[in-house]
Amino acid sequence: MTAFDDLMAHQRDTEALAGISGRLGWDQETMMPRGAAEQRGEEMAAIEGVLHARRTDPRVGDWLDAIDPSGLDAVAKAKLRHIRRDFERNSKVPAKLAAELARVTSVSQGKWAEARAAEDFAAFAPVLERVVGLKREEASALAGNGDLYDAMLDDYEPGATGAGLETLFSALRPRLVALREAVLGADHQPAQIEGSFEEAAQLQLAREMAQAFGYDFNRGRIDKAVHPFCSGSGADVRITTRTALTDPFSCVYSTIHETGHACYEQGIDPDFALTPLGQGVSLGVHESQSRIFENQLGRSRAFTGHLFDRMTALYGDLGIADADAFYGTVNRVAPGYIRTEADEVHYNLHILMRFDLERALISGGLEVADLPDAWNARFQKDFGVVVDKPSNGCLQDVHWSVGLFGYFPTYTLGNVYAGCLLKAMQTAVPDLDAQLAVGDTTAATGWLRENLQRFGGLREPRDTIAHACGFEPSEEPLLEYLEAKFRGIYGI
Amino acid sequence: MTAFDDLMAHQRDTEALAGISGRLGWDQETMMPRGAAEQRGEEMAAIEGVLHARRTDPRVGDWLDAIDPSGLDAVAKAKLRHIRRDFERNSKVPAKLAAELARVTSVSQGKWAEARAAEDFAAFAPVLERVVGLKREEASALAGNGDLYDAMLDDYEPGATGAGLETLFSALRPRLVALREAVLGADHQPAQIEGSFEEAAQLQLAREMAQAFGYDFNRGRIDKAVHPFCSGSGADVRITTRTALTDPFSCVYSTIHETGHACYEQGIDPDFALTPLGQGVSLGVHESQSRIFENQLGRSRAFTGHLFDRMTALYGDLGIADADAFYGTVNRVAPGYIRTEADEVHYNLHILMRFDLERALISGGLEVADLPDAWNARFQKDFGVVVDKPSNGCLQDVHWSVGLFGYFPTYTLGNVYAGCLLKAMQTAVPDLDAQLAVGDTTAATGWLRENLQRFGGLREPRDTIAHACGFEPSEEPLLEYLEAKFRGIYGI
Repeated sequence: MTAFDDLMAHQRDTEALAGISGRLGWDQETMMPRGAAEQRGEEMAAIEGVLHARRTDPRVGDWLDAIDPSGLDAVAKAKLRHIRRDFERNSKVPAKLAAELARVTSVSQGKWAEARAAEDFAAFAPVLERVVGLKREEASALAGNGDLYDAMLDDYEPGATGAGLETLFSALRPRLVALREAVLGADHQPAQIEGSFEEAAQLQLAREMAQAFGYDFNRGRIDKAVHPFCSGSGADVRITTRTALTDPFSCVYSTIHETGHACYEQGIDPDFALTPLGQGVSLGVHESQSRIFENQLGRSRAFTGHLFDRMTALYGDLGIADADAFYGTVNRVAPGYIRTEADEVHYNLHILMRFDLERALISGGLEVADLPDAWNARFQKDFGVVVDKPSNGCLQDVHWSVGLFGYFPTYTLGNVYAGCLLKAMQTAVPDLDAQLAVGDTTAATGWLRENLQRFGGLREPRDTIAHACGFEPSEEPLLEYLEAKFRGIYGI
Repeated sequence: MTAFDDLMAHQRDTEALAGISGRLGWDQETMMPRGAAEQRGEEMAAIEGVLHARRTDPRVGDWLDAIDPSGLDAVAKAKLRHIRRDFERNSKVPAKLAAELARVTSVSQGKWAEARAAEDFAAFAPVLERVVGLKREEASALAGNGDLYDAMLDDYEPGATGAGLETLFSALRPRLVALREAVLGADHQPAQIEGSFEEAAQLQLAREMAQAFGYDFNRGRIDKAVHPFCSGSGADVRITTRTALTDPFSCVYSTIHETGHACYEQGIDPDFALTPLGQGVSLGVHESQSRIFENQLGRSRAFTGHLFDRMTALYGDLGIADADAFYGTVNRVAPGYIRTEADEVHYNLHILMRFDLERALISGGLEVADLPDAWNARFQKDFGVVVDKPSNGCLQDVHWSVGLFGYFPTYTLGNVYAGCLLKAMQTAVPDLDAQLAVGDTTAATGWLRENLQRFGGLREPRDTIAHACGFEPSEEPLLEYLEAKFRGIYGI
């Protein structure tokens, strides 16, 4: 056994144990009896302890030092790059700080939920201050003299920087705001869907859509959960969905979204299983897959024509004139407080304000106590609406309560990447719309698997997109796509 | 922190990780997608590796040596007893042998399933020889100069010996054979149930029965699986069941059986959670709980009267005259090849022959090649029937293929213990039958929880039964119960 072999054998078990931890997370959200929460907490702490010990095992450092990379191929080098980055990251954070962060964030999520239910930001402010303080400490340990926010970003999107995202987002914002105003001011406004749609039919349609987008049920399953998510990698990638009685699109599109995440994981080269290359490479690239499935493909005029037929067959008359009107209904733009319910035009505006606010929180330019005012002022400026209560404002998302700073921008990065990927896909699959119109996504999802998904963690995130597209990613394709689509729907 | 505290903290995480391993086993049998089997194998190997390392960690030996037990209470001493036994056991088996056993038994189960399907014992014989050889090696490492079979028993029923069981079983056999012959020769024979019973109703009744027997759904759940089982401990104890279209009793009684196992785990003192006292103390004691739920309570004249009402309400006319006839139908005695389908009179005869055969295999008095002949001869002698094919004979059970020698006798030990517990319970709960007749098991299951279940692993297995009963366990109560019950039903 060489040092490389020893390191890979060690890593293989670490990956398997991390997979177990993920599976427990799935169980917790889908199957676990209510009364088991405390016991599960102990189990999660135990396996996280094992994982931390393995990831900071001094032998990992010794093996990394002992390996001569000169004779290694690109795959081996990529594995080492991931392991080295994780080892250095995990080793830099003092165990005491890591434990304190785990302790505080396990409590703070509950405090956030209580404060949100009580519409009482003041009750949440002290714990959020504590979380911000600890995350700043952690980022200092990681960044050395570097930027704190960049160190946080590195957890979710290696290679991304606050400055780079600021440039990108500054290019997006004015055109999104202009599009939003044009659309909302248009004479023609699509109808909303009305009626009541029984759960069994919604779940049947969700399974059909997952299948249509290439989800492999032999290596996964769909269950109901409070929040839709995707969990697992390799041969066991499970998704969840939810239903809303009066909104049949919620179940359909959250399922197609999670199918995008799942197909990325299922599409990775099986040779990468139980190595650091065996998962999606970053949150931004992951989100590009879920978003292109959900929006660029799933909400296209072509595919919604197919969906209109399927839903009419399932539910009878939908009260919508034809497939063109249905396309408008599916893509209806409406201002709203809640990010997770936002349409394609508004969604990134939600992210852009969170990015600016969280950077200010981390830099110290914004105090936690001033967050509601800052949020509400910015929301009014970008959305033209006054926030009516904290649960519709800065208490709506769980992320900050559990220390996820630097996470939000990956959602918009995913949308930007999805825009680039659609452009490249349209060139590679000239009759894409004709295929989608009959519900056939084989060429589209096959192109993504062949050019992006199968490579897993082989390349850095941005390079993963550039390799698939054949050009450097930028915001332009997303903006062109959004402007063309929504100007078309709204006749402007 | 004292050595005792350090040891308990170490043990706590080990117990939590063992709980995770068990939960993965549950997932594998109920939820896991088919295509994930190989990946799950890697995950199980990884966590078993972690558990083995923790259980044989030299620090455990150091802590055990450093602890002065003189000032400790009974609970602390019991914890140390379990930890010491496991540490010594795990440390005695060479890692190479343990790995080889794991490897061989992971393959041999598949070979057994193939051989059973093909009715080809010769195809299975070589791998069974290998398993027997490795188990003998393992037992030698454990037993030193002691008896090999006793060392194997120790895994499942600490304190039991082959000689002690032989004495017990010798007392059972003639009276069971005599009862069997009397019953089968009786003029009156109960009717079989006929008809088709839809799955949804069977599952509804199963849930109702689990509830009636005190299963806490807040700390558990019921799912379908190929084989009924109970999994987990403390606040997360899950059971599975199965349905058979033409046999509604299979689902009802396998559910009540697993509810017995589950209520034992759910009934243990919460203070024992994540300690070695936090699980049922042995397989025999565990089986006493499942059997007394299923048979002594669930198949009693009193409770079957309630069940008759419930099943009539659910399915309509069952084609059975009245509750007395129904009691006979539920308890119908019929010779059959298959242990898992056996009635109360035949069941222990199945176990007694397996006990003698496996002891002979381990002692070397019986060669694997001669097993089918030995099995068939013994079956004809005890059951009066010629075995027609290996799947109805020595290939019917999975146990030996995976190295479970010393496991079978715990089933009959459980029945013997259940007989003792019923006798004690009848004294403690004078109006037991009146309660069961209206489906109220509260006093019965409460008596078991109070006098046995809550103590978990505090006492040795036999002492656990003796403490609950107030007398030393013996075969007599079980035999008296069986003779009275079946002579009554068959009018002999």
